[in-house]
Amino acid sequence: MSEPFRLSASEAARRIAAGRLTARALVESCLERIARREGEVGAWAHIDADQALAEARACDQSPPRGPLHGVPIGVKDIMNTADMPTGYGSRAYRGHRPGADAACVALARAAGAIVLGKTETTEFAALSPGKTRNPHHPAHTPGGSSSGSAAAVADFMVPLAFGTQTAGSILRPASFCGIVGMKPSFGLIAPAGTKVLAPSLDTVGGFARDVADTALFLAALTDRPELRPAGPAQRPRIGLYRPQPWREAQPETVAALDAAREALARAGATVAERAPFPDFDGLVAAQLAIMNHEAARNLAWERLCRAAEIMPRTAAMLADGMAVSAADYDAARAQAAAARARLGAFFGEFDAMLVPAAPGEAPPLATTGDAVFNRPWTLLHLPCIALPAHRGAAGLPVGVQLVGRSGEDARLLAIALFAEAALAAGR
Amino acid sequence: MSEPFRLSASEAARRIAAGRLTARALVESCLERIARREGEVGAWAHIDADQALAEARACDQSPPRGPLHGVPIGVKDIMNTADMPTGYGSRAYRGHRPGADAACVALARAAGAIVLGKTETTEFAALSPGKTRNPHHPAHTPGGSSSGSAAAVADFMVPLAFGTQTAGSILRPASFCGIVGMKPSFGLIAPAGTKVLAPSLDTVGGFARDVADTALFLAALTDRPELRPAGPAQRPRIGLYRPQPWREAQPETVAALDAAREALARAGATVAERAPFPDFDGLVAAQLAIMNHEAARNLAWERLCRAAEIMPRTAAMLADGMAVSAADYDAARAQAAAARARLGAFFGEFDAMLVPAAPGEAPPLATTGDAVFNRPWTLLHLPCIALPAHRGAAGLPVGVQLVGRSGEDARLLAIALFAEAALAAGR
Repeated sequence: MSEPFRLSASEAARRIAAGRLTARALVESCLERIARREGEVGAWAHIDADQALAEARACDQSPPRGPLHGVPIGVKDIMNTADMPTGYGSRAYRGHRPGADAACVALARAAGAIVLGKTETTEFAALSPGKTRNPHHPAHTPGGSSSGSAAAVADFMVPLAFGTQTAGSILRPASFCGIVGMKPSFGLIAPAGTKVLAPSLDTVGGFARDVADTALFLAALTDRPELRPAGPAQRPRIGLYRPQPWREAQPETVAALDAAREALARAGATVAERAPFPDFDGLVAAQLAIMNHEAARNLAWERLCRAAEIMPRTAAMLADGMAVSAADYDAARAQAAAARARLGAFFGEFDAMLVPAAPGEAPPLATTGDAVFNRPWTLLHLPCIALPAHRGAAGLPVGVQLVGRSGEDARLLAIALFAEAALAAGR
Repeated sequence: MSEPFRLSASEAARRIAAGRLTARALVESCLERIARREGEVGAWAHIDADQALAEARACDQSPPRGPLHGVPIGVKDIMNTADMPTGYGSRAYRGHRPGADAACVALARAAGAIVLGKTETTEFAALSPGKTRNPHHPAHTPGGSSSGSAAAVADFMVPLAFGTQTAGSILRPASFCGIVGMKPSFGLIAPAGTKVLAPSLDTVGGFARDVADTALFLAALTDRPELRPAGPAQRPRIGLYRPQPWREAQPETVAALDAAREALARAGATVAERAPFPDFDGLVAAQLAIMNHEAARNLAWERLCRAAEIMPRTAAMLADGMAVSAADYDAARAQAAAARARLGAFFGEFDAMLVPAAPGEAPPLATTGDAVFNRPWTLLHLPCIALPAHRGAAGLPVGVQLVGRSGEDARLLAIALFAEAALAAGR
């Protein structure tokens, strides 16, 4: 733990604020790590080492500007940056210079963060993968769409990185890469300047290697200090829920949930199985219909004017979306609204639900994996967090997902802090 | 009515499709109208006559591409355009070239529309006015934030133009300029590529000089042919609702509502006064808190990195937004959700509500007027349409607003068609 690149964001920020570490030493250490590992991992679409070092020197010459003072971060390349190219993972935007920072990037910088570069994303945060490999095994996907952000954090290139989730683009890569990933409540972090895929679903969130760092990051971006838990939740009541289609849960995901259930109970949580909830049947299909319908219309310019540059998988998704009629879209939205009205009944006495984060270990590189266990929660606008929990047969990480009650991001983070300790003790 | 610039979009499209009018003649006529009137009205931030004429010639050489084939439109300058500068009404973005079309612009072009240019907007669609004057009286505001779009349509420069509404930025200028303006249900028209102000409120809509054109425009943008009414609604049930703070309604707005009530009843509608609905008290303040809180965060880059270029009124709004705490924001959102859950009780047996579109006639140029009678309906995500109804003491137009039930945009347009005929007969 002597090398700065291994430090958590919280510890690095503490040391920098106390004068026991310079931002420059930290940035240099991260850049060295990247130089050593990027050839294998491919997490970055763009790195600006000179600028990051210049910003680090400026940090070292000024009093702390905010809770992320001097902390290097990665920015998913569907987020605009004033000073770096922003390619949205697409040939259609190669070298694109949007001329302004996305709101979340400006807020992170205002909190003192140093943007090391832009992380690889699938095209428009949809399904067509970029070059990133899973840091635990280069033949496997890191997940997507926030592929580079998850891989960079998992591989100790940066302690924090931005992600976005429309289906499962934060939770799934976090699970595959063995780190923490949080999709907060819909709208909690300002979305302006982030490429729109499906505006009723797109949610900005982040990756870190532990829950405390996740909370630090989100609190800094939202001016909500209450997101940083004073301590782990006391005796949380957690429901183990096996969503449809349960047959998609592979043995290692079932094992991860069982191990998590045991560890949580041993640590003092009340854990009980939540009975099947038929009101939520069909939400996977509803999410898909809404996402594709909205994407086909919100990416109208790309679909109509840049068709030759769009990847086949993106084009197929947009074609699917054009085939979702307005009536089908309206019906899916009505179904989502009805399901949201049943959230109280779904949660009952439980503070959070324990559900799969992904079907299993990271699959081979050809795809970014399946978001089936993420779609309903994104559609319901609920806060979700992935925690590392297990290893599969191939030795790759398998996470679990905790889903919080509507708007209760702070409570979810306190429960996640409890669960993180319980899972560590259980290993 | 012999000059093409006076034609409705529907009539122009019909004539072009039938070979009785060329797109070129129509575009030339609109450009001549603009050349004659723009010095007084100031509706445009950017005009590209050569490109519009080239596109018109191309239209004339191809079979109709869509329902707007050859129809010139104005695009509010907070919407990105690949081929024209996009300044968001701000010195901070002078000469900005976003490199892609906003989704709604791409969809309009795919339907055959010809973008004549970008229309003047307040800075970031907030409160700081641009150069536009009310075409009915140059010392008065056209309203805002969609100032140029409303003025251009009212002054026969284009038959259709885009607007957006976060508080009252479509309904208010429509009322002040004596035209039809519709804010459809939240999310009905794809928002990607439109500058974000407050993402939970921002809604794309449009201006026209009659209801049929409004329906034509919205149907073309959404692939929802059902938005074009087969005919006027039969015997609609309309509630006359006097929202709080009613003291803001000036005599000409009270007179416009009374005249509309009489005209609607005479035409066969059931019109009755809807009793005060205390569940909606406080929604004006809730909308303001949500809008300002979100704007301060979504315009973080502009607030933090371009402060010197931002207009004082915008800066003051963003400062107000920073002062809206997360707790106050959450409370306002909860209040809005509770009000949305009461919409069934509010509408009761009524198909639509007749409410003020604006407090009165257009005030003098220093402001864009007050959105107090628009904020609640925007917050509730309801479809709203402004119709010309009256003239005030200064001889300026005064509109009325019809608010439809949630998601019932098609029904609202059919009712508006009925109301338009009733109001014309009543004059």
